[in-house]
Amino acid sequence: MVIIMQAGAPESEVNAVIAAVEKAGFRPWINPGVERKVIALLGAVDAAKAELVDHFSALPGVERVTLISEPYKLASRRTRPEPTIIRVGPVSIGGDELAVIAGPCSIESREQMFEATRAVKEAGANLLRGGAFKPRTSPYSFQGLGVSGLQLLAEAGRAAGLPTVTEVLHPDDLDVIAEHADVIQIGARNMQNFRLLQDVGQVGKPVILKRNPGCRIQELLMASEYIMLEGNSNVVLCERGITSFEDATRYTLDLNAIAVIKRFSHLPVIVDPSHAAGDWRYVASAALGAVAAGADGIMVEVHPDPASALSDGPQSLRPEKFQELMDSVARVAAAVGRRVARPE
Amino acid sequence: MVIIMQAGAPESEVNAVIAAVEKAGFRPWINPGVERKVIALLGAVDAAKAELVDHFSALPGVERVTLISEPYKLASRRTRPEPTIIRVGPVSIGGDELAVIAGPCSIESREQMFEATRAVKEAGANLLRGGAFKPRTSPYSFQGLGVSGLQLLAEAGRAAGLPTVTEVLHPDDLDVIAEHADVIQIGARNMQNFRLLQDVGQVGKPVILKRNPGCRIQELLMASEYIMLEGNSNVVLCERGITSFEDATRYTLDLNAIAVIKRFSHLPVIVDPSHAAGDWRYVASAALGAVAAGADGIMVEVHPDPASALSDGPQSLRPEKFQELMDSVARVAAAVGRRVARPE
Amino acid sequence: MVIIMQAGAPESEVNAVIAAVEKAGFRPWINPGVERKVIALLGAVDAAKAELVDHFSALPGVERVTLISEPYKLASRRTRPEPTIIRVGPVSIGGDELAVIAGPCSIESREQMFEATRAVKEAGANLLRGGAFKPRTSPYSFQGLGVSGLQLLAEAGRAAGLPTVTEVLHPDDLDVIAEHADVIQIGARNMQNFRLLQDVGQVGKPVILKRNPGCRIQELLMASEYIMLEGNSNVVLCERGITSFEDATRYTLDLNAIAVIKRFSHLPVIVDPSHAAGDWRYVASAALGAVAAGADGIMVEVHPDPASALSDGPQSLRPEKFQELMDSVARVAAAVGRRVARPE
Amino acid sequence: MVIIMQAGAPESEVNAVIAAVEKAGFRPWINPGVERKVIALLGAVDAAKAELVDHFSALPGVERVTLISEPYKLASRRTRPEPTIIRVGPVSIGGDELAVIAGPCSIESREQMFEATRAVKEAGANLLRGGAFKPRTSPYSFQGLGVSGLQLLAEAGRAAGLPTVTEVLHPDDLDVIAEHADVIQIGARNMQNFRLLQDVGQVGKPVILKRNPGCRIQELLMASEYIMLEGNSNVVLCERGITSFEDATRYTLDLNAIAVIKRFSHLPVIVDPSHAAGDWRYVASAALGAVAAGADGIMVEVHPDPASALSDGPQSLRPEKFQELMDSVARVAAAVGRRVARPE
Repeated sequence: MVIIMQAGAPESEVNAVIAAVEKAGFRPWINPGVERKVIALLGAVDAAKAELVDHFSALPGVERVTLISEPYKLASRRTRPEPTIIRVGPVSIGGDELAVIAGPCSIESREQMFEATRAVKEAGANLLRGGAFKPRTSPYSFQGLGVSGLQLLAEAGRAAGLPTVTEVLHPDDLDVIAEHADVIQIGARNMQNFRLLQDVGQVGKPVILKRNPGCRIQELLMASEYIMLEGNSNVVLCERGITSFEDATRYTLDLNAIAVIKRFSHLPVIVDPSHAAGDWRYVASAALGAVAAGADGIMVEVHPDPASALSDGPQSLRPEKFQELMDSVARVAAAVGRRVARPE
Repeated sequence: MVIIMQAGAPESEVNAVIAAVEKAGFRPWINPGVERKVIALLGAVDAAKAELVDHFSALPGVERVTLISEPYKLASRRTRPEPTIIRVGPVSIGGDELAVIAGPCSIESREQMFEATRAVKEAGANLLRGGAFKPRTSPYSFQGLGVSGLQLLAEAGRAAGLPTVTEVLHPDDLDVIAEHADVIQIGARNMQNFRLLQDVGQVGKPVILKRNPGCRIQELLMASEYIMLEGNSNVVLCERGITSFEDATRYTLDLNAIAVIKRFSHLPVIVDPSHAAGDWRYVASAALGAVAAGADGIMVEVHPDPASALSDGPQSLRPEKFQELMDSVARVAAAVGRRVARPE
Repeated sequence: MVIIMQAGAPESEVNAVIAAVEKAGFRPWINPGVERKVIALLGAVDAAKAELVDHFSALPGVERVTLISEPYKLASRRTRPEPTIIRVGPVSIGGDELAVIAGPCSIESREQMFEATRAVKEAGANLLRGGAFKPRTSPYSFQGLGVSGLQLLAEAGRAAGLPTVTEVLHPDDLDVIAEHADVIQIGARNMQNFRLLQDVGQVGKPVILKRNPGCRIQELLMASEYIMLEGNSNVVLCERGITSFEDATRYTLDLNAIAVIKRFSHLPVIVDPSHAAGDWRYVASAALGAVAAGADGIMVEVHPDPASALSDGPQSLRPEKFQELMDSVARVAAAVGRRVARPE
Repeated sequence: MVIIMQAGAPESEVNAVIAAVEKAGFRPWINPGVERKVIALLGAVDAAKAELVDHFSALPGVERVTLISEPYKLASRRTRPEPTIIRVGPVSIGGDELAVIAGPCSIESREQMFEATRAVKEAGANLLRGGAFKPRTSPYSFQGLGVSGLQLLAEAGRAAGLPTVTEVLHPDDLDVIAEHADVIQIGARNMQNFRLLQDVGQVGKPVILKRNPGCRIQELLMASEYIMLEGNSNVVLCERGITSFEDATRYTLDLNAIAVIKRFSHLPVIVDPSHAAGDWRYVASAALGAVAAGADGIMVEVHPDPASALSDGPQSLRPEKFQELMDSVARVAAAVGRRVARPE
């Protein structure tokens, strides 16, 4: 950590900061003889002490405090240099194989769920998604089938031989979700619902943690730390678009998040082009871009009949469009040394 | 609702959309004889049907669908033209009086809490804030004193004759919070934790709902609708800064949110300049700006010793700075026809 | 255009709007018998009349006006359905071939320029870039070699058989730039310097128009219209990152801009991953993502010795890294039906 | 400047950085014996050397470089601690008086200009604005009356005894503008048109420099440095809204920019609430907020008949609304120790 004093801060303030640094258990190290003092802390400032930034920032005479090390630990590549590979049944996420998670936004009926499952399986997806508890912006919108939806998802997954992914909204639902699904998803709106992160961390299942569209990559990594601290390090991060002033798409896909996350963390990262674009016309382009940029997987909404979907119809691909996309995905994946594994 | 077809969309697609509109219970109204068809829905498209936007958007040949009416109902000024005034003990929020909510970010100790309470009371605050359950970006940061913090808050509030405000993070804590505090706050990170909104809506206490920094004003109003639908219409909205590319301050205070909310909703709106700026140096300027712009109140972090604060020290005002601010607030409030009520 | 009146707007206001619509030469068309009037304009509202949106918006009783057609004309895919292919010497941009524009940010010396040229030529670039007039955030930074830089660029390009690209900042420099370079670039900061756009439009050379990081895609298309109206339709659009709250990279690459532009316009679109990321570590990932997503080309900064670069060193690739990137680019391009043409 | 090496960077890289620091004329100062080296530069790193950040960032083994001092000099409060007060005829900007610049967006006709002038003069404005050369997003929009507009502006200003403000777009127009107007405005779109800044800096007239909506405050201060370096230090900065994801208003007014600029610079800062909001309904609220927050002035669009305005009608105030606003402005100004001076 580096503490930058205001130019011309009086010696008394500099001394008070030095005392605070020592009290916190560090050796201060100060540049000599110049107008603006800089105080560096000798000794490792680990994640547990990152909040000292705030503490020192509030001292009189301090202009700015810069944290040099990352404020997360378990998620950091410095803690674990090699990439984490997460196994979900026959699929592995984070290695050479590319995860393709597909299915409808909401589980709406047995027929819809089985038809969607058949379509995504045929096209080559290796994980099945479907929402039973839906976080909807409007309280008047369809909120999901709940437990009966979970049962349909589990049944469809078993029939197709595909592991399943579904989202949790409330701690009370965790047990029944863990019983029916293979991977638990924390949606973008709950990325900083820290108590839910802790609750999910205590369940022994892989977790997909979606980035909140208003949060920085560093905040996403800090959120993953909440889960990992509970003993669960099987966390897949998911970029799904951030807010920006551009309104031609619903969100702005932050493609560089892939390379940034891979630089600072060992956790796998996937991309959800459907929510980022909010319009099926742009999904294929973004999905291929993500694969070429190095994503460990993609998550795509597919619906047998988007016009009758109870949620996110405009961004869902029809089965035939998804099939086309998968053909291209296979080629682009090969071009960057990846392959789409197909469970039997 | 207005449905705009793609230029040159074939008659079959136009007819399919017309059929869908009729099936949804509306009368379609179509412009004649031009290249690009526009289909308007006759009949009120209320909030409960707002999601038809998605449905119609996904139909073949549709370019874009525009919702004309607001997607919220109870929060809308069209449902209730006069402003909502919320009474909290001797204070009222939303009328001529200005609410001034002040206190430390976190409750840290009896001494700190009582000293802060004395300071804000003397300076003229009329509501007391303090966090017992803290949502922290890092799991290594201080997470709050929990129930014993609540007890200190309640005790300090009683002693000073100030109603109290505190934040809820987890449904399991709701009962004990409702027992100890007068106003329940939903923090920015939980603004779209819809299940928590519903749980809070069932408690008969006024609610302060903070805007998530990545959410639009319309999403804030939709979130308030979740609470109001449970029968609780005592909701105060709080602007506390949104994300933007500017990094001189932690967030960008969206000052116009005050006027926009007042135009579309009857709910009171307050401003939190402390979190928006993230730096005490900018708090007074933003607080005065908010009062002049028409806010129904401000929420300010005050700490007897910011340098020893366990959270948000850099943005907390010392008691003497807060006193100065309150002197100016009184003058600016008077200039716009408002006054700071002081409970006895 | 669709004009939406406020709910309950009096008949006098509705009539005044109808009169204004008729005065503007359109036939109004009004929905019958509902609380909120919607007035549609019959007849084509072409780009030249797009500003009527503002006019009608300012009329009493009007809530909102929606423009249905695009506010640009020459750049629109509706004016020209097939993609524009621009020939620059032996290279074509916008067809099956992929344009790879590479070179140093600034031209610094004969040695640096020739070494960079050799490196990018060998690796497979087909256009050579180099800045002689540099727009620098700080007036204390290197501002470019000016005309002597242009001469070096032209010489290096001729020697390598590569057409050249350089940026114009001031109308006074246009002639000398047109004399020495094959493609004229309008930088991001001048995207809405409309008078410069007009001046450049009058020169008979292909233009690369870079998107301003604070401007929407629609504004980029409107800016291209300024150039095309002068009779020059050889405009290549360039996405180079937009502003957002994420600070892990200098800008946020808006990958979806590729698909959005291709939907609405016939103009070619390329991507500059160097400026978007601001860090060489992220350039390759973004470049490959752009190619897979359908970009017509990429523009990459390459410097023989980034640490001694007079501008943009941190985002410049060393020659060997660029060579590696080009190997991958060739594979990914092939996977999406594209190829990198190499001039002899 | 502080250079942070990657953790575990080899000694050879550390030594190379030290050598580079010494070569640049600084004494390096390195923390001893810890895993991650930090190299501080002893000696003042003035604005002219700020670009060394880029240079050092590109060296192998460097993780990040932090500039401690500001990258601007003439605009910095450290160069000039007391606020700059700029005199324009009888008005002074930057001291106790509040500048109120008002008038139509575009000068359209003699009648419109004189009527608007009478209205703003009566209401208490002390500077007159009007655009003769208009930067319009669309080439099909009204581009201004040009020189004949300038003549009308000058005439109306003389008649009312109000100094005048108008915008320059092209260097060729500078002479005629300087002849007719008292203050030259550089519009938001040209904030980083550095050559124009230099051209304007050479004219001996006060300048209003508007912030580009996609630029940070620091970039605004750097742009002012371009003007001041030419010998003209009479620069007024103008906040007029930045881009963000919120679409309820055209831009997001960055209220905190006032306090941030006042902290780092001695230059006066004014606010343009009209362009920020894009809707007259929100202008008064934002204008009052700006005055209370400490702005040195406001710039408001007023049009005798907004519905017939050739530009920006929706955000223009009618004369009677502007009169109401000015009554409130006077009260709020007094509440924060300011007054609106009225030229005779």
